[in-house]
Amino acid sequence: MIAVLKKDVSESQKQNLVKWLKGHGVEVHISEGQYQTVVGLVGDTSRIDIHLLEGLDMVESVTRISEPFKCANRRFHPADTIVEVGSGENKVLIGGGNTAIIAGPCSVESEEQIVGIARSVKASGASLLRGGAFKPRTSPYDFQGLREDGLELLRIARKETGLPIVTEIMSEKHLDFFEDVDLIQIGARNMQNFELLKALGKVNKPILLKRGLSATVKEWLMSAEYIMAGGNEKIILCERGIRSYDTYTRNVLDLSVIPVLRELTHLPVIVDPSHATGHSRLVPSMSLAAMAAGADGLIIEVHNDPAHALCDGAQSLTPAQFDELAQKIRNLQSVIG
Amino acid sequence: MIAVLKKDVSESQKQNLVKWLKGHGVEVHISEGQYQTVVGLVGDTSRIDIHLLEGLDMVESVTRISEPFKCANRRFHPADTIVEVGSGENKVLIGGGNTAIIAGPCSVESEEQIVGIARSVKASGASLLRGGAFKPRTSPYDFQGLREDGLELLRIARKETGLPIVTEIMSEKHLDFFEDVDLIQIGARNMQNFELLKALGKVNKPILLKRGLSATVKEWLMSAEYIMAGGNEKIILCERGIRSYDTYTRNVLDLSVIPVLRELTHLPVIVDPSHATGHSRLVPSMSLAAMAAGADGLIIEVHNDPAHALCDGAQSLTPAQFDELAQKIRNLQSVIG
Amino acid sequence: MIAVLKKDVSESQKQNLVKWLKGHGVEVHISEGQYQTVVGLVGDTSRIDIHLLEGLDMVESVTRISEPFKCANRRFHPADTIVEVGSGENKVLIGGGNTAIIAGPCSVESEEQIVGIARSVKASGASLLRGGAFKPRTSPYDFQGLREDGLELLRIARKETGLPIVTEIMSEKHLDFFEDVDLIQIGARNMQNFELLKALGKVNKPILLKRGLSATVKEWLMSAEYIMAGGNEKIILCERGIRSYDTYTRNVLDLSVIPVLRELTHLPVIVDPSHATGHSRLVPSMSLAAMAAGADGLIIEVHNDPAHALCDGAQSLTPAQFDELAQKIRNLQSVIG
Amino acid sequence: MIAVLKKDVSESQKQNLVKWLKGHGVEVHISEGQYQTVVGLVGDTSRIDIHLLEGLDMVESVTRISEPFKCANRRFHPADTIVEVGSGENKVLIGGGNTAIIAGPCSVESEEQIVGIARSVKASGASLLRGGAFKPRTSPYDFQGLREDGLELLRIARKETGLPIVTEIMSEKHLDFFEDVDLIQIGARNMQNFELLKALGKVNKPILLKRGLSATVKEWLMSAEYIMAGGNEKIILCERGIRSYDTYTRNVLDLSVIPVLRELTHLPVIVDPSHATGHSRLVPSMSLAAMAAGADGLIIEVHNDPAHALCDGAQSLTPAQFDELAQKIRNLQSVIG
Repeated sequence: MIAVLKKDVSESQKQNLVKWLKGHGVEVHISEGQYQTVVGLVGDTSRIDIHLLEGLDMVESVTRISEPFKCANRRFHPADTIVEVGSGENKVLIGGGNTAIIAGPCSVESEEQIVGIARSVKASGASLLRGGAFKPRTSPYDFQGLREDGLELLRIARKETGLPIVTEIMSEKHLDFFEDVDLIQIGARNMQNFELLKALGKVNKPILLKRGLSATVKEWLMSAEYIMAGGNEKIILCERGIRSYDTYTRNVLDLSVIPVLRELTHLPVIVDPSHATGHSRLVPSMSLAAMAAGADGLIIEVHNDPAHALCDGAQSLTPAQFDELAQKIRNLQSVIG
Repeated sequence: MIAVLKKDVSESQKQNLVKWLKGHGVEVHISEGQYQTVVGLVGDTSRIDIHLLEGLDMVESVTRISEPFKCANRRFHPADTIVEVGSGENKVLIGGGNTAIIAGPCSVESEEQIVGIARSVKASGASLLRGGAFKPRTSPYDFQGLREDGLELLRIARKETGLPIVTEIMSEKHLDFFEDVDLIQIGARNMQNFELLKALGKVNKPILLKRGLSATVKEWLMSAEYIMAGGNEKIILCERGIRSYDTYTRNVLDLSVIPVLRELTHLPVIVDPSHATGHSRLVPSMSLAAMAAGADGLIIEVHNDPAHALCDGAQSLTPAQFDELAQKIRNLQSVIG
Repeated sequence: MIAVLKKDVSESQKQNLVKWLKGHGVEVHISEGQYQTVVGLVGDTSRIDIHLLEGLDMVESVTRISEPFKCANRRFHPADTIVEVGSGENKVLIGGGNTAIIAGPCSVESEEQIVGIARSVKASGASLLRGGAFKPRTSPYDFQGLREDGLELLRIARKETGLPIVTEIMSEKHLDFFEDVDLIQIGARNMQNFELLKALGKVNKPILLKRGLSATVKEWLMSAEYIMAGGNEKIILCERGIRSYDTYTRNVLDLSVIPVLRELTHLPVIVDPSHATGHSRLVPSMSLAAMAAGADGLIIEVHNDPAHALCDGAQSLTPAQFDELAQKIRNLQSVIG
Repeated sequence: MIAVLKKDVSESQKQNLVKWLKGHGVEVHISEGQYQTVVGLVGDTSRIDIHLLEGLDMVESVTRISEPFKCANRRFHPADTIVEVGSGENKVLIGGGNTAIIAGPCSVESEEQIVGIARSVKASGASLLRGGAFKPRTSPYDFQGLREDGLELLRIARKETGLPIVTEIMSEKHLDFFEDVDLIQIGARNMQNFELLKALGKVNKPILLKRGLSATVKEWLMSAEYIMAGGNEKIILCERGIRSYDTYTRNVLDLSVIPVLRELTHLPVIVDPSHATGHSRLVPSMSLAAMAAGADGLIIEVHNDPAHALCDGAQSLTPAQFDELAQKIRNLQSVIG
């Protein structure tokens, strides 16, 4: 951490600052220049409140050099984390060279629908089933999901196909309902719902943490850190597009985050091309691009009847389209290793 | 709502679409062109799921012409909403020509601190006291607030000064603690925490709804709509800066949202220049600008010792700076009416 | 084009508007609703000034349904454009299934440097040589390029290797110097330098048009339209990242623009992963992702000594790194066809 | 400037780096930590190429602490710059406490139009006349301005009213036409047209430098620096809104840039609320907000017949609306001093 002091700071003020900083257990190095004094802090600065330091009268600016996340930081945990989802013969590994495709509808609508899609995507090569039961919708007048009943339908689909199930939680009040869910998703809008993150830190279950609508990489990893600081280290990150100024796609899929996260963290990273683009016809090319960029997997919306899906039909592939895409992904993986 | 159909749609497909749309209770007008067919939907289109329509094979694009919010829409409620906060002689009105300044520290730290600041800002002209008890912090290692104890200290400060109290809720699980809070704040990170919004729709208390980090005006009003659809219409909107690409300020304060919201909604709008800019030295000019733009009030961070504040000291004014600013605001108001 | 009229517009005002619109050669369809009147314009609306229509007192909003670009629009030119660069045996085709890799240093520095890199990238499989002679730099104190001398060195490298040359023009005043350049690049900062675009519309040479720092797809295609309206239809579009709020990469590489542009335009699209990310270690994964997404080619910075490059060394691959990447791209292409 | 070295850098590599840096005339201070080494550079670092340093193998990251602009930097020129525009009795001062309102149409259309508006805005209190002769338009099919003829009409309007004239230049090729213009505007799209900036650095005339569509404060000041490095220090900065993700206004007016620029530079700053918002009904509140925030002036579009303006009519005030606004601005200035 680097603090730049104002021009007219007295020697005794500087000495007080150095004493206070050393009291926080960091080493302090001072460089005096003609127009400013630079104070370098070396050591474990992750617990120094940067805003507090900025608030001091004598300080002009503060810059963090090392990352403020620890549990999620590859610097301290060089080996890739491999997250296990589900159990028994249907257990799926994600990370450390293990890739997986999660597929299924935006919303669970009926037993027939979810079991039918589950069978279909399994046959095409998906290894996990997604389906929304509790649905975050921008409008209170849009379909809000089947809630507990939707979770029950997902369990039926799992029983029929063996596919572990992935579904979104919207409140820590619903945690009891999710006891039997294999991979709990935190949606983009809740990435900084800190009470929910803390609650999931106490749970012994893998978490799929989506990037917030305009979250920085650092904020995203700090949200992972919230969960990990509570004891739960089974986290999979999911890029799903960030907000930008153009309207041709719903969001901008930020694929360069894949190699960037590889350097910063040991956690696996998957990509959601369906929500990122918002248009099913853009999903195949973005799926291939994500895998070519090194993603550990994909989460793709598939619906047997997209035109009549209760939400986000526009971004769902048909089972036939998904089958074709899954084949292309296998071809791609055969050469990129 | 306008749907543009693809070039090669058959007449019978069109007739089916028209029939289906009329079944939803809207009028349908078709304009045939050389390269495309435009379908205009007139009437109450707020309950038509735009994504469903976009998902139809024959549809090229869909554009909403009227706003999807109803309770919050000035078109249906022309008169300004005036929100009453607190009760008895200290009751404060916001909206419809009534302006108010909310002031206080980022975090409640101690009885001495909060009572002292409350007295000071009241003397300078503030009519409500803010103070964080439950604190959303990016890092799990930063100070998380005094929580229930902080709420108790706010009640003491209210008793001492009469100022109604404003503080943030982070989870619907905490709702019981907030029974005695005069104005409940929903922070930017929870603007789309829909379970929390629904819970606050059932509460008979005014809500201060901050704009999300990169929320559109429409999304923000839809979040107000979530609360209002539940029955609670006492909402004050708060602009607090939006995320952008530059780093000189924490966020970009979007003041043009004030006249825009005046047209779209009857709800009052206040501005938070402290969180928007992140630097106390920018707060006075942005406060004056907000009032000149027509805001119904301000929420400003004031701390008796910003350099030692437990959070966000960098953006807090001292009581003396706040007093000077409050005087300038009164001068400004004397001429802008 | 759809215009929504205000609530209280009189019948005679409406009739005047209809008359005026028909005078511009478009068909007009009116849909009357309870709260608003919707006017649909069908036909060639590309020459109607949308701002003029918005300015009318009776108009509430105007939405363009069809695209305002014509020459660049796939709707009117369904077949892919194939751009020929260079001549004779070294002629390169780009578009319509023909892909090409452009490689070379950010800046031309010396004959030894540019000829050496040209030989090396040709051996690895590049089919065009890039190199900056006129350099747009944010700071007036940074290296501004060798200018005319740099162009001469590029011609020498072409003579030695046969590779057609690609280099950036910064002003229409320099056009005479570029007579012998095979592919003239317009940089991101000049994407809306309309006088330069008009001048290049009169030139019989292929143009590489980079996307502006935060240009929309529509603005980008309108800039292509400026050149094409002047008579020059040999345009290759180049995605090079857009500005966003995070700082881990220089820009956000927007790969979903590839399938989007495929639908909207017949022009070829290539990708510049070097400028997009700003870090050489991110270039290989983003190059593969771009090709997997369907790009018609890549433009990659390669320098024999990146650490001592006169500009942007941080984003340059070494010749050995480029050779390895080129092999991976060939492997990828063998399966994605 | 602070460079962080990688973990495994050898002592001799470090010594080579220190030697090389000292060769550039800066002082070097090294702080060794457990996980990294921090190298602090003190002195005149404005001529060190940050990209070159980042490109070194041993360097992990580089952070600039001091600003890379010098001529525009308040640190080296504490007193406000006051720019004189025009001459004789109609000379206008801008900056250092002197404010001015520039008003006029988006485009010059006819002698009657421009002289009429000039008389009207002068009567209302404007002290300079704006009017576009060379017009940057997104579409090649939109009105491109009267060009040289437009400049002649502006000269006539100046002769009739005495108001100094302000108009935009789009290419250094047109410089001869601008010999008689009082204040030459560089538009947002040309803010980084470096050849144009260099040409204007050789001109003895005040320059109005608009902020680019998504320019950072630093990039904007570096563009001012380009002009100043050439010898022309008469620059007025103009905030005109930045690109963002919402569509309710054309751009987001970033008023906090006013106090930020006051700290960083001695150059005057004015605001263009017309282009920022794109809607005339938002112009009055944003004009008042800009002046309350401390702007040195405004540039406002006024048209006698906005509905029939040849460009941007939607954002123009009528003369009567401008007159009312000018009165409100005077009232505001009477209290904010």
